[in-house]
Amino acid sequence: MYQTKPIDPLQIIDLKQSILEDNDKDAEALREELKKENTFLINLMSSPGSGKTSTLLSLIPYFQGKIQWGVMEADIDSDVDARTLCQAGIPSIQLHTGGMCHLDADMTRQGIRALGRPDLDLIILENVGNLVCPAEFDTGSSLNMTILSVPEGDDKPAKYPLMYQECSVLVVNKIDTLPVFDFDKTRMEQYARSCNPDTRIFYISAKTGEGVEALARYLLSQISRGLQ
Amino acid sequence: MYQTKPIDPLQIIDLKQSILEDNDKDAEALREELKKENTFLINLMSSPGSGKTSTLLSLIPYFQGKIQWGVMEADIDSDVDARTLCQAGIPSIQLHTGGMCHLDADMTRQGIRALGRPDLDLIILENVGNLVCPAEFDTGSSLNMTILSVPEGDDKPAKYPLMYQECSVLVVNKIDTLPVFDFDKTRMEQYARSCNPDTRIFYISAKTGEGVEALARYLLSQISRGLQ
Repeated sequence: MYQTKPIDPLQIIDLKQSILEDNDKDAEALREELKKENTFLINLMSSPGSGKTSTLLSLIPYFQGKIQWGVMEADIDSDVDARTLCQAGIPSIQLHTGGMCHLDADMTRQGIRALGRPDLDLIILENVGNLVCPAEFDTGSSLNMTILSVPEGDDKPAKYPLMYQECSVLVVNKIDTLPVFDFDKTRMEQYARSCNPDTRIFYISAKTGEGVEALARYLLSQISRGLQ
Repeated sequence: MYQTKPIDPLQIIDLKQSILEDNDKDAEALREELKKENTFLINLMSSPGSGKTSTLLSLIPYFQGKIQWGVMEADIDSDVDARTLCQAGIPSIQLHTGGMCHLDADMTRQGIRALGRPDLDLIILENVGNLVCPAEFDTGSSLNMTILSVPEGDDKPAKYPLMYQECSVLVVNKIDTLPVFDFDKTRMEQYARSCNPDTRIFYISAKTGEGVEALARYLLSQISRGLQ
């Protein structure tokens, strides 16, 4: 384990569109590279506004002293998320996709190289907020995690099946607002299981902290296994 | 004005991917076709779960007896939204995009022809829930309307600027949940106005009905002007 240091000023990387034709092959190659570097990569996906950044912030106290980690924030524009994480002491860079709706393995590699921190145990790629396109591209990650927030509704896995098929961890966020919305957990789980029967489902509120410890413990166990 | 009749059983149309290279040109052609047919087309866009279908349901009493209208529900999978609207007496068809993340003009035309109702004054295309790709493709619509729901956060126009640049009507939905979320109207409006200073902004709750009448009145005036 190395000492982390905050990156200042904030790095903003303009990603170049990939020219590689075979993304699946490139994603496998990146997974191999990261394995050699002892870095676990999580690809975090969701709709816009599901709480990706606030979920990452809620994990900080549970990862503290256990792993060294950093974040790559992919957005079409703005740098607000990367700034938020930097201010919280997490090494972060902002990736601008130039209008692209997803990241592929080559763009992910560009981000990792720009972050320039082979000492990190864990890098989390916060993908573009989009339930459609990111699910179609293997980023080379070791684990795909999708957030579904309660206000979006329990029917999302029925409408965007590939996203829920591709994720191995499904985080249902904003559970503090369950009393305000008509969200049927059983129905959501049925839809999600029909996409992927093996998905691990965690209910959390990044705002109140409820449920975050169980998610953090599970992620730490997966990271530890992946880095062995 | 013609008599509407519910479509039963529900029509599900599998859209074919377009082979046309110049979508902008095709969108202009579709706009001309619809003008001749006296049909106003609204392209409705938002994140997944912002309340596109429930907003349409909330407009029914205000459109009743004033215009004949129908809906095309574009989704990657499922037919739950088109069923909901059919049950409410609105002629609707389900468009399946086969994984595609947006609709272009040719796909929109396929849907309109399959709906087969040149008697309608208004057709609303409920686009795929996605803040990125649909903004890049002119569907041939006369008006682009985007919904931003309060739980998504006030920073969405900063992160997905093209979507907020392309819409002339911005509907902020789920305002009944404002006390639960940290949503700054002034900040949201600043971000939205920097994308498009001419956007008309309406605050509504499709659930409680608050604000829907003003939105309906504005849309009816635009439709009436467009059909002159």
